[in-house]
Amino acid sequence: MRRALLLAEKGLYTTGENPRVGACLVKDGNLIAQGFHRAPGRPHAEIEAIKQTDAGLIRESTCVVTLEPCSHVGKTGPCAEALVDAGIARVVVAMEDPNPLVAGRGLARLRDANIDVVVGLYSEEARSLNRGFITRMMRGRPYVWLKSAASLDGKVAMPDGESKWITGPDARRDVQRIRGRCQAIVTGINTVLADDPQLTVRHNESGLVIPEGLSAEQPLRVVLDTQGRLPISNRLLDAEGPILWVTGSHCQHPMFANGRIEQWVAPLCDGRIDLKALLLELGRRQVNEVLFEAGATLLGSLIEDRLVDQGVLYYAPKLLGQTARSLYDIAPTRLADAPEISIQSICEVGGDFRLDWTLGTRA
Amino acid sequence: MRRALLLAEKGLYTTGENPRVGACLVKDGNLIAQGFHRAPGRPHAEIEAIKQTDAGLIRESTCVVTLEPCSHVGKTGPCAEALVDAGIARVVVAMEDPNPLVAGRGLARLRDANIDVVVGLYSEEARSLNRGFITRMMRGRPYVWLKSAASLDGKVAMPDGESKWITGPDARRDVQRIRGRCQAIVTGINTVLADDPQLTVRHNESGLVIPEGLSAEQPLRVVLDTQGRLPISNRLLDAEGPILWVTGSHCQHPMFANGRIEQWVAPLCDGRIDLKALLLELGRRQVNEVLFEAGATLLGSLIEDRLVDQGVLYYAPKLLGQTARSLYDIAPTRLADAPEISIQSICEVGGDFRLDWTLGTRA
Repeated sequence: MRRALLLAEKGLYTTGENPRVGACLVKDGNLIAQGFHRAPGRPHAEIEAIKQTDAGLIRESTCVVTLEPCSHVGKTGPCAEALVDAGIARVVVAMEDPNPLVAGRGLARLRDANIDVVVGLYSEEARSLNRGFITRMMRGRPYVWLKSAASLDGKVAMPDGESKWITGPDARRDVQRIRGRCQAIVTGINTVLADDPQLTVRHNESGLVIPEGLSAEQPLRVVLDTQGRLPISNRLLDAEGPILWVTGSHCQHPMFANGRIEQWVAPLCDGRIDLKALLLELGRRQVNEVLFEAGATLLGSLIEDRLVDQGVLYYAPKLLGQTARSLYDIAPTRLADAPEISIQSICEVGGDFRLDWTLGTRA
Repeated sequence: MRRALLLAEKGLYTTGENPRVGACLVKDGNLIAQGFHRAPGRPHAEIEAIKQTDAGLIRESTCVVTLEPCSHVGKTGPCAEALVDAGIARVVVAMEDPNPLVAGRGLARLRDANIDVVVGLYSEEARSLNRGFITRMMRGRPYVWLKSAASLDGKVAMPDGESKWITGPDARRDVQRIRGRCQAIVTGINTVLADDPQLTVRHNESGLVIPEGLSAEQPLRVVLDTQGRLPISNRLLDAEGPILWVTGSHCQHPMFANGRIEQWVAPLCDGRIDLKALLLELGRRQVNEVLFEAGATLLGSLIEDRLVDQGVLYYAPKLLGQTARSLYDIAPTRLADAPEISIQSICEVGGDFRLDWTLGTRA
């Protein structure tokens, strides 16, 4: 199963709306075939493995796969059926498919065919790899990453907005790995106006490994722009990849003509884009994981609305001082009201360090 | 030497103005005696070891000691002489004594008596243990610790000043260990007025181990109070232990009558207490290590004046938000002017984590 998980991880940057899945075929203790899901429309992991070797050899073998084989016909045929047809004797699965179209039906199909089925091996690791797919299937919205980079005293920019660069090249390369696994990156119009970011994934520069034969695609870049202030010319528009312009009312933009950007008019909540509605819209657009890279206001709202699944905070060994800009625009009045955080891990990244957090159970 | 260092460390909270020293006597590969320096006026480590066992056994043995044996007569006789008299064959020393009254003379005395002398074993660890003593001997001022406790977004208090407690009990116990090794703790009048702290060391509660037969003494508590605003009644005065009231001019205080507090009129620099002068004064008072526990203004000044030897920053897993109070009152205008920090270590302390830092080489 560990090998199957490593195989699944190869699809980290390319499986898009699909789950990351790896599969191994084992017979008499020997690995006879392996496969992983590369991208939407490409074969599922089990099928890739089955096709790899001789049909006779596959008979009576064990299939070890990180996700329950599918039972429905999507862009590809149902894998459970293919395993039955191939004469597999035993299937070891890390986790059930949270997709309501599958949800145990794949396992049931295998059991009906008298295949020995084991579920739950390394399920924690399998869930972690597909946290986005699971969140979308269960909650209809993507898994939300929130990334920030600050000095040790929690400042993200100088008083005049200067912020290039607080963290070092290794931390910035690490951010590329998070961007790369997300199908959408969200920012606010103020960040676009102030920093003019591209928000693209630099796969090559950052050493993100893409499966052979595939080209790396850019995630959907989403700009929250209640008032419709997006300028005609900026680096976001210059860079390759789709753009979703989220406004509070119907606005015109010169780039509509050539289809360069798409507009989505969002419902408002207290005069701001309704973030819950935004996430459901991204869920509808099959975004499994979304990264928010934005200013203190937007990130603060996400925290206050408790919409953060995974916070990543890079600290640089600098002190920017009291007049510099703060991390999150939240304003609890008493210590007891301050959001509690659960620290997942702390690790060094170049000269900086990265802290992974989730929101705690207390408000 | 490792055993000698562990012995030396037993004096961490009690050696006061003296260095922490441990010594072992070894003969034919066997430990025959050991000792450490407990407190000013008590025997030095080597003497404690020598007195512990039979004079005949000591002859021709090796003395392993963490600091160069002294050559001068202070409150106790010179140890180099005692080692010569005891007929020691070999002395292994971790580091030379930085005390200008010794500074190699102890080693010279041993060599003159044809004792085999080796210097430098575990010198890094020995220096770390006596960083305060070394700093005072070399620079005339104490080693400066700067402690802060903040939320993950670098905030130390709510907008109204509420700060009890940001960190958990383990981190606060850890602070007691730093307080315990310092001979002085400095704070500002604003912290006294706002938080009314005791700034004492709770040896028992915090599990600080004091050598048998000694009673734990409180460090000198120093209040920086340019205008002389110290109130008559506060927890600082209520708690046991000496207090130094540092003012910008001669001020009267009702507590002078009973000698409860001592006043030192400090030179001013831009209308504030001159921190360099303060540190030299503490050096004159034989303070080896001093801890600053204070507000953003005083800590910011220490950082800007580059007077911090060791910063300790506790982060609690909370977010206090943009309106809460910041860590350090420094105000670089450009990113390039922000003080660079060197991260020494990061470790978990209860649910919080502790980051040890020093000022980097760049301004």
